[in-house]
Amino acid sequence: MTNKYDFGLVGLGVMGRNFILNVADNGFTAYGNDLDKEKVEALKQEGGDTAKVDASTDAKTFVAALKTPRKIMLLVPAGKIVDNVIESLLPLLDKGDIIIDGGNSFFTDTDRREAYLKEKGINFFGAGVSGGAKGARKGPSIMPGGSQDAYQHVKPIFEAVSAKYNNEPCVAYLGPKSAGNYVKMVHNGIEYGLMQLTSEIYDLLKKAGNLTNEELHHTYAKWNSGRLQSFLVEITSEIFAKKDTETDGDLVDKILDKAKQKGTGKWTSQNAMDLGIPVPTIDIAVSMREISALKAERTKADELYDRPNPEEVMKKALIEKAENALYFAFIMAYAQGMHQLADASKEYGYNLNLGEIAKIWRAGCIIRAGLLADITEAFQANPELQNLLLAPSFVEKVKGSVKATRELVAYGATNGIPLPGLSNSLTYFDAYTSERLPLNLIQAQRDFFGSHTYERVDKDGIFHTEWEA
Amino acid sequence: MTNKYDFGLVGLGVMGRNFILNVADNGFTAYGNDLDKEKVEALKQEGGDTAKVDASTDAKTFVAALKTPRKIMLLVPAGKIVDNVIESLLPLLDKGDIIIDGGNSFFTDTDRREAYLKEKGINFFGAGVSGGAKGARKGPSIMPGGSQDAYQHVKPIFEAVSAKYNNEPCVAYLGPKSAGNYVKMVHNGIEYGLMQLTSEIYDLLKKAGNLTNEELHHTYAKWNSGRLQSFLVEITSEIFAKKDTETDGDLVDKILDKAKQKGTGKWTSQNAMDLGIPVPTIDIAVSMREISALKAERTKADELYDRPNPEEVMKKALIEKAENALYFAFIMAYAQGMHQLADASKEYGYNLNLGEIAKIWRAGCIIRAGLLADITEAFQANPELQNLLLAPSFVEKVKGSVKATRELVAYGATNGIPLPGLSNSLTYFDAYTSERLPLNLIQAQRDFFGSHTYERVDKDGIFHTEWEA
Repeated sequence: MTNKYDFGLVGLGVMGRNFILNVADNGFTAYGNDLDKEKVEALKQEGGDTAKVDASTDAKTFVAALKTPRKIMLLVPAGKIVDNVIESLLPLLDKGDIIIDGGNSFFTDTDRREAYLKEKGINFFGAGVSGGAKGARKGPSIMPGGSQDAYQHVKPIFEAVSAKYNNEPCVAYLGPKSAGNYVKMVHNGIEYGLMQLTSEIYDLLKKAGNLTNEELHHTYAKWNSGRLQSFLVEITSEIFAKKDTETDGDLVDKILDKAKQKGTGKWTSQNAMDLGIPVPTIDIAVSMREISALKAERTKADELYDRPNPEEVMKKALIEKAENALYFAFIMAYAQGMHQLADASKEYGYNLNLGEIAKIWRAGCIIRAGLLADITEAFQANPELQNLLLAPSFVEKVKGSVKATRELVAYGATNGIPLPGLSNSLTYFDAYTSERLPLNLIQAQRDFFGSHTYERVDKDGIFHTEWEA
Repeated sequence: MTNKYDFGLVGLGVMGRNFILNVADNGFTAYGNDLDKEKVEALKQEGGDTAKVDASTDAKTFVAALKTPRKIMLLVPAGKIVDNVIESLLPLLDKGDIIIDGGNSFFTDTDRREAYLKEKGINFFGAGVSGGAKGARKGPSIMPGGSQDAYQHVKPIFEAVSAKYNNEPCVAYLGPKSAGNYVKMVHNGIEYGLMQLTSEIYDLLKKAGNLTNEELHHTYAKWNSGRLQSFLVEITSEIFAKKDTETDGDLVDKILDKAKQKGTGKWTSQNAMDLGIPVPTIDIAVSMREISALKAERTKADELYDRPNPEEVMKKALIEKAENALYFAFIMAYAQGMHQLADASKEYGYNLNLGEIAKIWRAGCIIRAGLLADITEAFQANPELQNLLLAPSFVEKVKGSVKATRELVAYGATNGIPLPGLSNSLTYFDAYTSERLPLNLIQAQRDFFGSHTYERVDKDGIFHTEWEA
């Protein structure tokens, strides 16, 4: 074989096939590999000219077809499969070749693989890819981490295939080791938060304002043309307009309310707890998916308890408040995620540039939103920013939207409409902006029953009191 | 040495010394071991008659002093130290001897140690001990898991030293492997929840009702004589009465509002997420300790944002509502913890008896409360109970206290007083008792951008829609 290909990709599911076609669209030649013959054939057919796109079920043929240093991306399910694919490729590779894991691998797995492959002279990248099937085809946001030198070989291809925001590519070298996977994990945690928020606002508008699906469609569409502009608000609007092909109703009403999860939101919450960084908007989004899965229990419980009848509200005022509250809570979700990244950067030595991360999230990925331009600017103005809430440019945004949030959380609590994402965003804000919290009592309790000691407000030191006379 | 001792204990800190004196008070002879000579001497002095209580810094002397099968309890910090102590004892032990880890070891560590020691013919128990220093001395709640046969040797001692509730010992064999550690972990998770709730209600009473510390003392004391009767409410009352010895104020006001944690609450939340069981009241308690630790950031943020001035409320009505809300939220914290235990029991093969667990929590431990008698009865009436909220005996309790909770959560949201534990307890309730939740939208979003499929309300199967025209 004389015609060597620029880029290789293992795993020709929807994402993989789309990614490779995207690479070819951008003037690079690409070669695919999958054990499944049908998938290989599907790609060949879609790819057209085999001088530009080709594929094989045979790993040896695949590896031999690539220019060195080989750039091989894996788009296979996270877990053991990634290790298996690596092991099967390893004997066929040369020193200096590059493997890029484009899946949602857990970041410590990436660290392990990177160290293992470094010993063998192979460069390993964990590169989160966000944008779904369409993003893979038309331009995703890509979050690579690994060796900075090796990244130079991948850079031209990734910059070409990635989404563009004002002509700037939505990809950047993020940091060493698992930095890319970690950033993608937190991206997904934020995504969980935003999805929960859009879903509970839907519930509120429906129950409190009696909005029809058509009205919901128009409401979310209108929001999407303003400061809430974002991929998730956009598709939410489209979802409400979708008719069911099996009955004569709207599809959204036919979908079962049991939300599934693949684990990245959970990992974000669990790891935030390890770091000691509060991300309650993300935590509750994970909890709500869990509660949703307990459908049988919920059905039983529903029969046992009454719920208040929602008080009537003015539809127009409700929608306006909901827009404010969603904006407020979106900010909290991003603030929490960025806070986690800032801390993880120190803890794991990623040396992350938060402004750069917000920048490559502005287009292509699932959490892309108008807000990310503001977030990018806030972190560019102050790369050491500890929390978005401390950015001068965010103070007015938050101040302007908190009052409506207070009113809706109060309304939801009073009327039995669960708004857990909204209320966690609000209590997060109220607690984070409180110089004094009542947790002095918790320290007193801990010292009382466990002699765990406490600090004082008026002098340094560690103190213990014999509380019982 | 002819006089052999009934019970051995390694780690003569406050807990260890108190536990051994408790053993001796109950007619058993006990021998202590610690590398620290001062601690050994302190125990000998307090123990009096060396025929009943003795101690040594030397492991060989210690082991030789014990009757076989030896019953050796470790009260040392969780982690590597437990392994080190085990390794140092191992060459000195005989087959059939019993090691009991009384610390807060992570449950998978206990599983590992139990399997490792079983190979060597040694029985290993993870036995959570709750009650603090005083509990260890006067009667703790003990949660042992491990070999049921070996437990028979330990049982008489544990039953004698444990707290009693209506003359029933607060200890029971809980299940195989790490069942004991796991139950203790969830106990501590519930404890985090209850502590957060007592602290935010304190904040509310202070800010909305202007209660003085003296009034808070009387309020919590009064609550403790009613249905909120519990160790944590009791000590909270006492805390408000404590004068500062360094200034002329009250001690509680001098304590810094940065709460520390040792990790068991965090583990509970993280593991609940692995199981897919929602415990948002516990999660938010972990988050609030984290936020409290960010004192410097909070101080900065406080300067940037305003807070509403709390509306005036009638003190008496406020206190009454607060009592209701605390009762409601306490129930939610226990419900979530028990739910987690029910699921963990299946997942890890613990075969837990939830009624028995509630029973041994009625006295001795930190979360002991009048409510636990009701919880015990609910699980005795239906051992398969999935969630406390489904117990007929709890429906009226919850119905009667939810309205006040709604009012206070609404008040806190409106007035900028963070009540995160209360609001998470309420949204948990509102979501868990909803037959229909808006997470159909989340499934639609997931299918839209990631082809993750969905189920339908009207027929079985897995569906996917091409959402974009």
